[in-house]
Amino acid sequence: MSPATVSRVLNKPELVEPETKERVRGAIKALDFQPSAIARGLSVQRTDTIGLVVPGITDLFFGELYRGIERASHESGMKVLLFDAQHARHRAFEGFTFLRQHRVGGIIFTSKVVSEDYDPVLERIGIPVVLALTEATGRTALPAFKVDDVKAVFDAVAYLVSRGHRRVGMITGDMSDDLTGDLRLQGYRAGLEHYGIPYQSSWVETGDYRFTTGYQAMRRLLEHQEQNQLTAVCAASDEMAIGAIRCLHDHGLKVPDDFSVLGFDDLGVAHMTVPALTTIAQPFAEIGERAVQQLVQMIADDTIHASGTYYLPHRIVERESVRALSDLS
Amino acid sequence: MSPATVSRVLNKPELVEPETKERVRGAIKALDFQPSAIARGLSVQRTDTIGLVVPGITDLFFGELYRGIERASHESGMKVLLFDAQHARHRAFEGFTFLRQHRVGGIIFTSKVVSEDYDPVLERIGIPVVLALTEATGRTALPAFKVDDVKAVFDAVAYLVSRGHRRVGMITGDMSDDLTGDLRLQGYRAGLEHYGIPYQSSWVETGDYRFTTGYQAMRRLLEHQEQNQLTAVCAASDEMAIGAIRCLHDHGLKVPDDFSVLGFDDLGVAHMTVPALTTIAQPFAEIGERAVQQLVQMIADDTIHASGTYYLPHRIVERESVRALSDLS
Repeated sequence: MSPATVSRVLNKPELVEPETKERVRGAIKALDFQPSAIARGLSVQRTDTIGLVVPGITDLFFGELYRGIERASHESGMKVLLFDAQHARHRAFEGFTFLRQHRVGGIIFTSKVVSEDYDPVLERIGIPVVLALTEATGRTALPAFKVDDVKAVFDAVAYLVSRGHRRVGMITGDMSDDLTGDLRLQGYRAGLEHYGIPYQSSWVETGDYRFTTGYQAMRRLLEHQEQNQLTAVCAASDEMAIGAIRCLHDHGLKVPDDFSVLGFDDLGVAHMTVPALTTIAQPFAEIGERAVQQLVQMIADDTIHASGTYYLPHRIVERESVRALSDLS
Repeated sequence: MSPATVSRVLNKPELVEPETKERVRGAIKALDFQPSAIARGLSVQRTDTIGLVVPGITDLFFGELYRGIERASHESGMKVLLFDAQHARHRAFEGFTFLRQHRVGGIIFTSKVVSEDYDPVLERIGIPVVLALTEATGRTALPAFKVDDVKAVFDAVAYLVSRGHRRVGMITGDMSDDLTGDLRLQGYRAGLEHYGIPYQSSWVETGDYRFTTGYQAMRRLLEHQEQNQLTAVCAASDEMAIGAIRCLHDHGLKVPDDFSVLGFDDLGVAHMTVPALTTIAQPFAEIGERAVQQLVQMIADDTIHASGTYYLPHRIVERESVRALSDLS
């Protein structure tokens, strides 16, 4: 069977004998059902590309993470293929298969917790997977890079207490989100407990990390402000913190003179607002870089076996949205 | 030649006769050098995926565009593969080839102007290409979806004039950028001319569309404020407008009481700031949707020949950063 015959079957099947067609198509089918074999045989490009499954490309934090992924990929001579899961669980699954079909050498996954229902997919694809901003809770242990969310919000409370605040509220993420929603609330409760401040459910409101829900959560907190007498609020995201600032502004309260607001993330927008946002910075770019470096190493070592959650350090970035109560009272 | 033989050559070549190996590898090579033939023969998936070349994934405007691309792709049952050109011209070229190798059915390109140096690439890849937020100026005519930048900034000036402003400055984009930098400045000059306001070069400063350069451009404008007596400024992007507001704030000037600022884009952040930004809205999501619909149609029609620049309507979104001078003076 000559190359010309194969080409003819594919391009001008009407010119080819049925039996020859049959044989060539059989061979093609064999190739098609051996994707890893094809990859080994045909494509040395394969280890030049890493795949990236993201929850939603339009999330502001993803942009920050991507800066690090871009930098480290560039340094390693890697191309990046992105798959946007559009905040849908089944799409995140699809992402693995899709990227595998596109012969990426490995995958960085950055979405919700990788729980046990991912195990069959992870076993099937057989290429290295590294997690960024998330963790694996299933049977398959995977290397993960993130901050310690509990510790980060604990430190946020400690910072506010050090600035004289004790009546500190919280705008948390979705509690059913066991990745950040629940952990950040745990950090808040641990912080209050550490400083002997009783936890009160009326001090906590929930949002979905976006501006609008931050605004609404702050409005609900203000409804009980007469009893609560809060002087500060921690938000579980910068966007919710900015929403809270806008809400306070609309209610005639100045930040930080009348009320202090602390964010979480340190997105690009955190320094653009008036007042600029004091916030817990996640080292997004470094998390992206470290995840790529880990993946590149696993591809080079031809291994899918690595694990461990690496907590990268968060830090408090002081800008203008928190004031020290002792300055004025 | 049986499928099993092909598989054996790929997986266990040591078990295969040299001559057989030779023949199989010849056939594989033929397949490899006929990528479109492979695609037709092996993969009915091919027309299920569109490629997207973007200047930089972290650009805020890209997120807005992507919402529309996502929605329309989802509706058409298309998957999207992204390639990030990282603001580098040679990477944008690479994007076409890379996505082609990954067998996408067509490409949406959203970066700088597609000038004549793209012609050889466009001829080689042989799949439909649609432009979003940009235009083709080379030999290869391509369908494009964008706003009329000249008209948009003309309308911005008209709006400010209608609010009593005549001493209107401009923070423009890079003039060497013939896509938006030059066009938006043209719109500004045409607007001034239309209302009989003499153009003065000291009323114009340049930035790169980002927050920091907007801040710096505003600072330079304020250095000549004693002579210029500007009451308002148009910025060629929301980020630069927000930078200008921050600069005015740091110089003790309140927006809009002391100075009015008009943005361009209507990004998500435009409503998050205090004051919320009055701005020229680009219909990013609609541009993304229309580009996908056009591309899907071309893939269905199996044609690469289509052209025409479609100007989608911009509009002025009134928020809080522009005041009517007649209210107070």
